[in-house]
Amino acid sequence: MTDTQTILDLEKTKIIELFDLDRAARRIRDAYIASSKGDVQTADVGHLSFPEVKGDCHIKSGHITGSDSYVIKIASGFYDNPSVGFPSSNGMMLAFSSQTGMPQSILRDEGWLTDMRTAIGGAIAALALARADATQVLIVGTGTQARLQACCLNDLAPNRKLEFQIWGRDAVKAKSVVAELEKSGITASVAVDLPSALGTANIITTTTPSTKALFDAGLVCAGTVVIAVGADGVGKQELPVSLIADADLRVCDMIRQSIGHGEFQGAVSLDPSIEIIELGTILSGAHPGRANAREIIVVDLTGIAAQDIAIAQTIIEAAASPSL
Amino acid sequence: MTDTQTILDLEKTKIIELFDLDRAARRIRDAYIASSKGDVQTADVGHLSFPEVKGDCHIKSGHITGSDSYVIKIASGFYDNPSVGFPSSNGMMLAFSSQTGMPQSILRDEGWLTDMRTAIGGAIAALALARADATQVLIVGTGTQARLQACCLNDLAPNRKLEFQIWGRDAVKAKSVVAELEKSGITASVAVDLPSALGTANIITTTTPSTKALFDAGLVCAGTVVIAVGADGVGKQELPVSLIADADLRVCDMIRQSIGHGEFQGAVSLDPSIEIIELGTILSGAHPGRANAREIIVVDLTGIAAQDIAIAQTIIEAAASPSL
Repeated sequence: MTDTQTILDLEKTKIIELFDLDRAARRIRDAYIASSKGDVQTADVGHLSFPEVKGDCHIKSGHITGSDSYVIKIASGFYDNPSVGFPSSNGMMLAFSSQTGMPQSILRDEGWLTDMRTAIGGAIAALALARADATQVLIVGTGTQARLQACCLNDLAPNRKLEFQIWGRDAVKAKSVVAELEKSGITASVAVDLPSALGTANIITTTTPSTKALFDAGLVCAGTVVIAVGADGVGKQELPVSLIADADLRVCDMIRQSIGHGEFQGAVSLDPSIEIIELGTILSGAHPGRANAREIIVVDLTGIAAQDIAIAQTIIEAAASPSL
Repeated sequence: MTDTQTILDLEKTKIIELFDLDRAARRIRDAYIASSKGDVQTADVGHLSFPEVKGDCHIKSGHITGSDSYVIKIASGFYDNPSVGFPSSNGMMLAFSSQTGMPQSILRDEGWLTDMRTAIGGAIAALALARADATQVLIVGTGTQARLQACCLNDLAPNRKLEFQIWGRDAVKAKSVVAELEKSGITASVAVDLPSALGTANIITTTTPSTKALFDAGLVCAGTVVIAVGADGVGKQELPVSLIADADLRVCDMIRQSIGHGEFQGAVSLDPSIEIIELGTILSGAHPGRANAREIIVVDLTGIAAQDIAIAQTIIEAAASPSL
């Protein structure tokens, strides 16, 4: 062997070029199933925080059984960054051979792949658990995830003719998200009044860093699926605990994470016996998912290492075989 | 900002060129002190294992208060690698701004910096806790750490006129380590008989992946410091529990790690009340360390993120100011 190892080293621009939404969604779907079947080895999440600059860093890593690489994902959020001209999200994904430990790839995605796999996760959950006739989507929040959740959901369900409403505390930001979605050909409008927007939505996706419920449980109608993607730390919460407690079905990506630092931490601490089903169990068909058009289903997605592995592998494979 | 981030990206050869032992040892010493003072934020260690190929991967990360970067270190050991022509150790260290989370440096050291900081840690402990007149060093084991522990200890104590003995189950390998040390001008010989080598040593450093005691407690003489660097996982053990239990002083790099997955796990499970002092507490002068020339002192070094941060920072600084 040579002294210097040859590593696939890709920058964000190239990664975006190699990215294929449908392929990534298929692989992330498979990854949820593998995770719920126990076929994913996931290390403890490493967490560093820098409260003085509202910053934190998460390190997720794992290996899907039989896969030839393991992936370590570093993702940071430094929420004062925009004031100095930097994006708040950053990070990279690293792949290593599961046969030798040799580094294979460095994907310097600056957090882009994490943003995408999070949005794809939300879209997969929405499409698996929404009513068959769902067309009205409410996105709560106006950040990167608000836009990406709408884009991925729209693009993964081309035949649904979805209509999006965006609600945020800052109407100017909501307007700006709507403008961006419209530029991509997505039907979108600003939700002026949150209660009435909640009342008409079939799919509600919350994408905020909130630490308290964003709305009252009674505003969510029968038949709705509510997907919370914001809570990723102890004390974070977007949904009313009673909405979770009274839901007909509670779904999450990984129970351990969801009750530890996700949206279900509050509901489980009040009632440890509530039933929670993993998304992969529904995607595999082992659990039937939605039973009827009246059920309210609540989903918590904390983001799992298996998603990172899956999306990283699609990029690495595309780099190896551009004709994929 | 540009679409592509500028990152210091160094390969192993360049890292070795920039490395300075004395500077690294000073910084690692400071890092032990900072760690014991509570000035180091350390994330949970991530661990993935690949038993089919005798492989594992550890992810350590942390931040020293006031430092402008945080460091994530990935280190793997795949013990079947040598049979296919690869080294068993591999890995890299990554530094990120603690102000913005932006990646700053990728040190593709292939595990070299981990090996060095481990050896430097052993040497710092030996020099802090050996008798003032200690000259006889016994290294148990014949791998990379056996050689590096001897080299670092020798080079960091140029006036001690140290004499090394190397013992291993495989005498051919021990002979090969001795030959390498002699090439570097170090006084070394093969220890043919372990009990008699133990009886003459003032400093004993064990560097094996053993899961049971390598020798009997009674073979260690008064006045000796025994440094175990091999145990880094549940069930690993190099020293007899009675040697630890009866030692005059027990020292480790981080109590949480040492009793969780280090050499002291067995002794603490038998007697949770035994006193353990962190190395940084001794290096800072807050604990006096060795009280007299007769004490037997046992040290367990599991390796801490603060060492990784310290050694990575010396390389990054040297790259920025080659005249350092």
